[in-house]
Amino acid sequence: LPKKPAASSSKAKDPGFTQSQKDRIVSLLGPDEMISFSKEKRSFQQLEAELINKRKDDLRKVYEDSRENLLGKLERQITDFFVERGFMEIKSPILIPFEYMERMGVGEDTKLSQQIFRVGENMCLRPMLAPGLYNYLYKFDNILPDPIRIFEIGPCYRKESDGKSHLEEFTMLNFCQMGSKCTRETLILLIEDFLDSLNIEHEIVSDNCMVYGETIDVLHKDMELSSAVVGPIPQDIDWGINKPWIGAGFGLERLLKVTYNFKTIKRAARCENYYNGISTNL
Amino acid sequence: LPKKPAASSSKAKDPGFTQSQKDRIVSLLGPDEMISFSKEKRSFQQLEAELINKRKDDLRKVYEDSRENLLGKLERQITDFFVERGFMEIKSPILIPFEYMERMGVGEDTKLSQQIFRVGENMCLRPMLAPGLYNYLYKFDNILPDPIRIFEIGPCYRKESDGKSHLEEFTMLNFCQMGSKCTRETLILLIEDFLDSLNIEHEIVSDNCMVYGETIDVLHKDMELSSAVVGPIPQDIDWGINKPWIGAGFGLERLLKVTYNFKTIKRAARCENYYNGISTNL
Ligand SMILES: Nc1ncnc2c1ncn2[C@@H]1O[C@H](COP(=O)(O)OP(=O)(O)OP(=O)(O)O)[C@@H](O)[C@H]1O
Ligand SMILES: Nc1ncnc2c1ncn2[C@@H]1O[C@H](COP(=O)(O)OP(=O)(O)OP(=O)(O)O)[C@@H](O)[C@H]1O
Ligand SMILES: [Mg+2]
Ligand SMILES: [Mg+2]
Ligand SMILES: [Mg+2]
Ligand SMILES: [Mg+2]
Repeated sequence: LPKKPAASSSKAKDPGFTQSQKDRIVSLLGPDEMISFSKEKRSFQQLEAELINKRKDDLRKVYEDSRENLLGKLERQITDFFVERGFMEIKSPILIPFEYMERMGVGEDTKLSQQIFRVGENMCLRPMLAPGLYNYLYKFDNILPDPIRIFEIGPCYRKESDGKSHLEEFTMLNFCQMGSKCTRETLILLIEDFLDSLNIEHEIVSDNCMVYGETIDVLHKDMELSSAVVGPIPQDIDWGINKPWIGAGFGLERLLKVTYNFKTIKRAARCENYYNGISTNL
Repeated sequence: LPKKPAASSSKAKDPGFTQSQKDRIVSLLGPDEMISFSKEKRSFQQLEAELINKRKDDLRKVYEDSRENLLGKLERQITDFFVERGFMEIKSPILIPFEYMERMGVGEDTKLSQQIFRVGENMCLRPMLAPGLYNYLYKFDNILPDPIRIFEIGPCYRKESDGKSHLEEFTMLNFCQMGSKCTRETLILLIEDFLDSLNIEHEIVSDNCMVYGETIDVLHKDMELSSAVVGPIPQDIDWGINKPWIGAGFGLERLLKVTYNFKTIKRAARCENYYNGISTNL
């Protein structure tokens, strides 16, 4: 007698997508599109062809209408927000002396130190904006009127293993204030105004880390959007800083991931495979 | 008999600035300020103090009025120019596979290859924007309507020895068009419109280089602002490109150097020692 098929497979008409076919289909989905592979009646080729046409239309629409890159556009929007509120726009080196990281308390035995991309003997790619901002706070101290407000947006680099919310090349915003009114209240108000301007829901929790000690973390659902700090902290003195300060760092790709409901952060990254969250492999 | 002083030193009242004092004074000058050390009657301390006060006033004025960084602002201005003319804004990886440079014809025996910052075994900091744009032209081909126009602005890295117009970390603009109307005339018109929008005088000359062969170089006085190319070129095929194209690369710090009459390009760079061309060592 011929063998009867197993009971479960006689119920659903499962085209039997392989894992790599599933990954391909998922990469072609728009951010708010969902798919149930087990209920899907179309073949892989059919589904792929339909999605490719939709994504081509999406790209053509961007080309016709806006032509602005989401990461570039978000940087400009955030720049306007902080400049309007009295913060000076900084553009500091991305390739920095490794010695700055040592002075940030990131010694060779620490986890963050393992994440740093070294360049040659003495340099590295900055994993955070703090050293550059410390340098500017020091130089602007006693020149600019109190309080001193500065910010920077730009590339940062960390070796990472976790994929859904981590990139090795990402874009950081870091804003800070030094001098008077550098309280937890001021910091939280700034963070809330900032995220309201982007329409991003968030919650604020306490956490801590090696570099700064206690931090105020800003979350969206389970994902960290920012770590924020109320200074002063002991290492300020190594940077010539001796006044109160507050500051926060946000990843722009994480903000885009939330705003556009991307399933993975890769859609928001500098990359060849997605343009404004749309697959380019069409 | 006592020795008479040399004739020349009895004529001028030369306070006798050392080289390092001269360098310090020059760093404190505003872009259009000149100084004649041999005619200068003020002492170093007096001159330094006066210049420091002027530069503090300049920084306070930026903080009160604009708060925009010149490099950031120029990037935004150039972005508007190209988006308005139908170019798609690209943000591609800065940290790229070294293999891309091999595919650009930059083999290990070439001058440009010696200038590349390697990162780990397989990666490098991009010395030009071309590989990223080649990738996007390939992916957008047969999706976007003809002609395809794209551009990118962002950090590039080269090891350099010449100081006045070279930085190791600089900011490149590269725009290109692929498909129809990719002629020398279109390219030159774009370049001229672009530089007119920035009020920058220029002349166009023929030159050549290893990667592209013949180039159209754009100069301001003796300084190169851009190399521009009318494709196609033999290496296009390695990038899956088989249509006519035109493109040009400009350094933003060189554009700022011309616009603001900076004596050295360092004043325009991402750096700690100058903010918007003003010394921060005050
Ligand atoms: N690898 C990364 N990719 C994208 N964004 C990042 C990355 N690392 C940090 N960020 C962003 O920069 C912000 C400030 O950096 P911070 O050092 O606090 O990150 P972190 O605590 O290491 O984050 P996580 O715990 O998620 O690794 C983070 O809240 C996040 O938004
Ligand atoms: N080290 C650098 N610092 C600042 N700008 C640069 C640097 N290298 C190149 N550029 C800018 O990028 C543009 C395009 O790059 P290209 O490869 O043609 O430079 P290049 O021919 O090597 O320039 P140069 O002969 O001055 O070294 C240049 O015309 C210049 O404006
Ligand atoms: Mg981390
Ligand atoms: Mg954190
Ligand atoms: Mg060169
Ligand atoms: Mg050139």
